[in-house]
Amino acid sequence: MRDLLPEEVEVRDGAIATILDVYRRHGFVRVETPAVESLGLLMRSEGGENEKLIFKILKRGEKLVAAAGSEDWADLGLRFDLTVPLARYYAHNHAKLPQPLKAIQIGPVWRAERPQHGRFRQFTQCDIDILGLASPVAEMELILATTEALLALGLEDLTVRLNDRRILTALARQCGFEEARCDSVFIALDKLDKIGTTGVIAELEEAGHPSRAIALLMGLLDEVTGAAWRLERPADAVGDDAEGEAVRRSLRRIIEMVEQGSDGRFRLRYDPTLVRGMGYYTGPIFEIQHKEGRASIAGGGRYDRMIGRLLGRDVPATGFSIGFERVVGLLLGRPRAPRAAEDRVALVFEDEATPLARALAMARELRSRGSIVLLEVRSKKAGKQLADLEARGYRRIAVFEADGSHRWREPRLAGGSPA
Amino acid sequence: MRDLLPEEVEVRDGAIATILDVYRRHGFVRVETPAVESLGLLMRSEGGENEKLIFKILKRGEKLVAAAGSEDWADLGLRFDLTVPLARYYAHNHAKLPQPLKAIQIGPVWRAERPQHGRFRQFTQCDIDILGLASPVAEMELILATTEALLALGLEDLTVRLNDRRILTALARQCGFEEARCDSVFIALDKLDKIGTTGVIAELEEAGHPSRAIALLMGLLDEVTGAAWRLERPADAVGDDAEGEAVRRSLRRIIEMVEQGSDGRFRLRYDPTLVRGMGYYTGPIFEIQHKEGRASIAGGGRYDRMIGRLLGRDVPATGFSIGFERVVGLLLGRPRAPRAAEDRVALVFEDEATPLARALAMARELRSRGSIVLLEVRSKKAGKQLADLEARGYRRIAVFEADGSHRWREPRLAGGSPA
Repeated sequence: MRDLLPEEVEVRDGAIATILDVYRRHGFVRVETPAVESLGLLMRSEGGENEKLIFKILKRGEKLVAAAGSEDWADLGLRFDLTVPLARYYAHNHAKLPQPLKAIQIGPVWRAERPQHGRFRQFTQCDIDILGLASPVAEMELILATTEALLALGLEDLTVRLNDRRILTALARQCGFEEARCDSVFIALDKLDKIGTTGVIAELEEAGHPSRAIALLMGLLDEVTGAAWRLERPADAVGDDAEGEAVRRSLRRIIEMVEQGSDGRFRLRYDPTLVRGMGYYTGPIFEIQHKEGRASIAGGGRYDRMIGRLLGRDVPATGFSIGFERVVGLLLGRPRAPRAAEDRVALVFEDEATPLARALAMARELRSRGSIVLLEVRSKKAGKQLADLEARGYRRIAVFEADGSHRWREPRLAGGSPA
Repeated sequence: MRDLLPEEVEVRDGAIATILDVYRRHGFVRVETPAVESLGLLMRSEGGENEKLIFKILKRGEKLVAAAGSEDWADLGLRFDLTVPLARYYAHNHAKLPQPLKAIQIGPVWRAERPQHGRFRQFTQCDIDILGLASPVAEMELILATTEALLALGLEDLTVRLNDRRILTALARQCGFEEARCDSVFIALDKLDKIGTTGVIAELEEAGHPSRAIALLMGLLDEVTGAAWRLERPADAVGDDAEGEAVRRSLRRIIEMVEQGSDGRFRLRYDPTLVRGMGYYTGPIFEIQHKEGRASIAGGGRYDRMIGRLLGRDVPATGFSIGFERVVGLLLGRPRAPRAAEDRVALVFEDEATPLARALAMARELRSRGSIVLLEVRSKKAGKQLADLEARGYRRIAVFEADGSHRWREPRLAGGSPA
């Protein structure tokens, strides 16, 4: 975990304001859940590898004394994503929420990963979800809003990759994997970028999957990666029945509606190799890549059965999460936009020696007109102090004397006294 | 801990924007620390009772296996305030920070309290701190900025109470308490509102303080509560030497400068009974009360020795924290201001039946002009759906037909089609 210096916080706050503005114009509303959830909820959430990375919170007082063993020491955990808490939130509060709920969530999540470059154990996620809408209109809206937010941040050259878990499941079944164990196949497959083909094969073998199925699947992926597959061929795996037809139809509609709703500022392509690590997805899945990096900067999908496990009835749900830290990394790497045209004024005075009434009155007056006014006790190194103030954007600097009078340091920049 | 519904998040976000705007105009900059700190730091922070309320995080992997006993199971903790993490942040990062640092922090903190009405185990604090400025100018700035922020939220009729830990220490010493054990006296005394005189006496006796000192102090407090004490009398306790004179002088300067810098929209009064619970305060302490409740809605003080324990050299520091949950409680209790004059437009269509190209083009066009545009799949209960939309502030509603055409539902409100 790490500290954020004021300059980075400014970039982050600006990015959040831009994203929130786009999402709000798309009719989404912000909701908030606590950082801490019951450990039982987090451990039963099909969160894939993330469940192994939960920071667990020790029981308190008598409950800790009465704990049966090391497995029983903790009762709470820090959330590892915003999706599992949102499902719990919806299950608890649905009667008080608009239907369908179009939710924005921005907040920190925690994963007990080994520290490595560019990954943090506390990081911010920025999600939108639509709960209560089975139609592919939900996927279209998430894709349009998320790409618009990224474009508004100045991240051009975006590619949205789209796949469907039902097609992946059908392909895995065709290869000879047990359908009930598909989740572990997907979790391994999702690491292809990180651990390579041999790593994935090793992980699948270790998990006890049939060697023949592993070989067939890897061969299929090889083939797919080389060729420009069109939707029809892998989608054939879902079969010719009504269900298979529904899968193909929903993907086709998403592609068609997104093309209608976008203004051609990003690419959308069907990618049969897209997997996503979480176990909870049930339908379309998607990711966004930005030209500057191969890693995805946003990802999401449909998870129609998560809320049902908490509420007792299924509620269709789909979400899209911006990898906020990666996006901020891209923004920090660009030349900085000039600071907004704020009026920054520093009033410098000698502590104890200067009567403050006039400086304080000036500060109040300037602030009431929207200026940023910094009161500065004069330091012993006055030259360095003034240079520092200018570097921080304080272009107007008034120095107050012991008689209460003041002079502007840089009349050519200041445009005279504001009084 | 609790979920926040969209209406409350809207009020909270609005309040944060107002507060941030005031603080920024006073030259403060936002900084951010992680929610999780090392348990060692939190436990040695003189955080008073709050140290007993830390949520502790279980060690992971081999470290947990190797833990020596139950005291050794946890290595991290959730922060219980924003002051202790800020001191650590400054000690780590001071070379990269402006001097003095005028920091804004807004974020959640956690305390493992028993749930009770109006208190939560996760709650938001909103602090400003000035690090690196020994002058009472720092206290003046914190008091002026915090009261201005609360006034900007519409909270009128504010009283700032001011005292000084050095006077309290001198009084306690006069009564016969051991100076080294003053912290535990102050922690008990701070609960006067909650547990009453008998509760405080019992706690002081249990802690082993001399009965005579307890009786003297409680008699003194009784006397003080009745009379309108002026600064001079209790401040005499600090003695006639240079140090005593410095204490009186700094309090007098704070009062004088705040009066000069404010426009008379709040009261400031010296209150010799103000204590504050934390052990880390070293000088002036202050709280703000709002007419609607006796409880304070903001509190702070000077803590000149906290950073020194981490950095090896003392750095003067003083902070003021808004009790954000109490403030939000007051705001939610007031009649709601009418919703901002946003243009909210709902476009309703039949899923699958309606060609979407025109609705999507209209949505894009309206959003580019700043409108909030909600796409809504028509539900079976169309009447209820339209009434719900209106209740949510969507005053313009266009219903799209299967031929792609649309009609505005309420032409008298809509002012015609925007096309």
